[in-house]
Amino acid sequence: MLEWTPQELKRRIRTVPDFPVPGIRFRDITTLLKDGPAFRAAVDLMWAQVADLDFSKVLAIEARGYIFGSIIAYRKGVGLIVVRKKGKLPAETISTTYSLEYGSAVLEVHQDGIAPGEPVLIVDDLLATGGTALAAAELVQAAWGRVAGFLFLVELDDLQGRRRLQIAPVFSIIHFREDE
Amino acid sequence: MLEWTPQELKRRIRTVPDFPVPGIRFRDITTLLKDGPAFRAAVDLMWAQVADLDFSKVLAIEARGYIFGSIIAYRKGVGLIVVRKKGKLPAETISTTYSLEYGSAVLEVHQDGIAPGEPVLIVDDLLATGGTALAAAELVQAAWGRVAGFLFLVELDDLQGRRRLQIAPVFSIIHFREDE
Repeated sequence: MLEWTPQELKRRIRTVPDFPVPGIRFRDITTLLKDGPAFRAAVDLMWAQVADLDFSKVLAIEARGYIFGSIIAYRKGVGLIVVRKKGKLPAETISTTYSLEYGSAVLEVHQDGIAPGEPVLIVDDLLATGGTALAAAELVQAAWGRVAGFLFLVELDDLQGRRRLQIAPVFSIIHFREDE
Repeated sequence: MLEWTPQELKRRIRTVPDFPVPGIRFRDITTLLKDGPAFRAAVDLMWAQVADLDFSKVLAIEARGYIFGSIIAYRKGVGLIVVRKKGKLPAETISTTYSLEYGSAVLEVHQDGIAPGEPVLIVDDLLATGGTALAAAELVQAAWGRVAGFLFLVELDDLQGRRRLQIAPVFSIIHFREDE
């Protein structure tokens, strides 16, 4: 099988201007996901980044974070914790409010998902300002877990989200500058 | 490794009464997902059902359908199409309105996701009345694709959703009766 480079995978991502609001250049990964070999290669590159990392849970952020978080958890053989938008989890939750690149939201996890001291890998599709990932890290901390790392498919370098996530290593595969 | 039976996996699912509305017994799979070996076994049982089925795309329904759909697509080596709630997809979409067990909603897919005649496996976490899965099937049909099958982790037998999905084979692993 041919190896895929991050640059080749990047070309599978479609940029949609002014979505969801004017001024945002939306990086649409659905054009990558629908390409079977590209999708598999992207996940394999993500997996290679964290295969040797010490973590015993994956925390996946709704909704696109589930796509990658579930495969990483499955390959590692560890449990998956789902972060959801407010009101969707049926049992006792921990919640946090945070601001987004555009707008704000509340994230929740089940209280019983993370054991004290447990190393947790946080997974999402895209790192922008880092607000969502930081909120997820706060949830891990509130449950007395430990953030083992952050894993993303795409990173928007100019927004410098990485700077807000210095509590743990940050891994990403594909990088975009704002003018691309 | 020990084999897991569907009955053992079923015991990992928590039932929450009166969520999200009175009278609904919510089957909470987060207690299964967080258990690494149980999660892997559940996905492996789902995969075994469809490994030999002819499909070249997986259509995963937001949000919990992504958890299972992505792994099935990854293992098969085919592309993943994400069905989203209204307004979240940035490019040209096909949409359909449908009624849920509680409430109603609009589902969308990108127009360019499915090729004419392409066999598509529809994946979600749970089959209730079948309304969501049928709406997803309508999206496949509207894109001139062909529904190759439906795959679920959980089926609520008493709601008879299976009867509405007779256009293709329906696979599920764990069954609940309403009084359980």
